[in-house]
Amino acid sequence: MGIHVIAEFFGVEPWKISRVDTLRELIDKIVLESGLKPITSSYHQFEPQGVSGFYLLRESHFSIHTWPEFRYAAVDVFSCGVEETAFKAVELLKKDLKPKKIVKKIIRRGPVGKVKDDDSS
Amino acid sequence: MGIHVIAEFFGVEPWKISRVDTLRELIDKIVLESGLKPITSSYHQFEPQGVSGFYLLRESHFSIHTWPEFRYAAVDVFSCGVEETAFKAVELLKKDLKPKKIVKKIIRRGPVGKVKDDDSS
Repeated sequence: MGIHVIAEFFGVEPWKISRVDTLRELIDKIVLESGLKPITSSYHQFEPQGVSGFYLLRESHFSIHTWPEFRYAAVDVFSCGVEETAFKAVELLKKDLKPKKIVKKIIRRGPVGKVKDDDSS
Repeated sequence: MGIHVIAEFFGVEPWKISRVDTLRELIDKIVLESGLKPITSSYHQFEPQGVSGFYLLRESHFSIHTWPEFRYAAVDVFSCGVEETAFKAVELLKKDLKPKKIVKKIIRRGPVGKVKDDDSS
């Protein structure tokens, strides 16, 4: 039913992920360019630095949480639409944030998904 | 740095997850009872049924996306605070939504996390 890309961005220049203004402009652009369909978005500025941003999408959601002091950002794209748009969003973000390293986890979710481990029913 | 609980709720009574009004009241209560610290929240009503809800938290985020026609809800709690609050939120939700089955995935995220597979740097 859906795909959830969980991406860890390591080694990002702190100034790129410290303030809402800088990051919101970038993510707004990426969400649209990737073809995701935003319904609404919310941002929060942590002090002295760090940002949380969230987009409720027609397809599900996109989120980013940053810790500039660790040059780290946690990115999620959960899409129940065309799979490629989720991957494209992460690729566009990679192109702009230029992390030294990305670690990704891809999970298929939903009634026909493959999340079968850790069954704790 | 943080814990991300990815939970699939199967076999939920459709009326519990069809409308924003019903679900928002429940989730607002659960977020507070579990000790998570909400900054803001957004909901969207899909027609003819289905809800997306998102909470930006001091700790990161909580989200729920529902497909009542499949008796299914996708739940995420990403918390960089006390781990127990994330588990408590999922437990409280389980108590109220009474799914026939839950499949959970738990991921530790951040610079000191353990998300080591699918390294695509």
